[in-house]
Amino acid sequence: MNHSSQRGLVLFAHGARAASWAAPFERLRDATQAQAPDAEVALAFLELMTPSLPDTVAAMVARGIDRVTVVPVFLGQGGHLLRDLPALCDGIRAAHPGLNLHVVGAIGEDPGVQRAMADYCVAALGD
Amino acid sequence: MNHSSQRGLVLFAHGARAASWAAPFERLRDATQAQAPDAEVALAFLELMTPSLPDTVAAMVARGIDRVTVVPVFLGQGGHLLRDLPALCDGIRAAHPGLNLHVVGAIGEDPGVQRAMADYCVAALGD
Repeated sequence: MNHSSQRGLVLFAHGARAASWAAPFERLRDATQAQAPDAEVALAFLELMTPSLPDTVAAMVARGIDRVTVVPVFLGQGGHLLRDLPALCDGIRAAHPGLNLHVVGAIGEDPGVQRAMADYCVAALGD
Repeated sequence: MNHSSQRGLVLFAHGARAASWAAPFERLRDATQAQAPDAEVALAFLELMTPSLPDTVAAMVARGIDRVTVVPVFLGQGGHLLRDLPALCDGIRAAHPGLNLHVVGAIGEDPGVQRAMADYCVAALGD
């Protein structure tokens, strides 16, 4: 299989000590991969879990991927997205000069995700 | 206005140092309140931001609310939801013996929220 024109999509999450924490992120990765069969979809973590974002992107680059989109799977934009993620991306771009690395907004800011979360909150009143 | 039969709905989030972090949670609270006008909807935070969950519930109880639902606005279930939140709820129940306090699952585990997040991830490939 020729990966040279394949896109990489990295779902970038915080990480946690409890292994159970990763379960919804793994389901999200699997659902995204199923909907985007032409892309290579992977999870990466800021801390406490592996793989890291630099390691994940390096593995994609080693397989010939030259375009990677990063989706921050965070609800809000705090220091992790305002400072840590840009610093990581600076390092990745320096390590892989030919890479097109693109970062989109935090998943929790998306209007569709916001609508689904509001629906869940309202439904919780009926529980 | 008689609040004695009103329900309380607390959106419980982590909190962060950056004030900007709270914006999507505030939008979520406002959207939820608009869809649930008969409930009192409030935000509360685990750390770094106020009000706390105990203070938020105490204020609701002081206004005559005796049924409170807590929605953990967290993507995954780590130590904060497995240990910190149950401990907070134990303290709240001890402080307010007549209160019916109900906690639902993490928002990030909801199938509807998962679908919306997957849609956002797939759409990010087109950015």
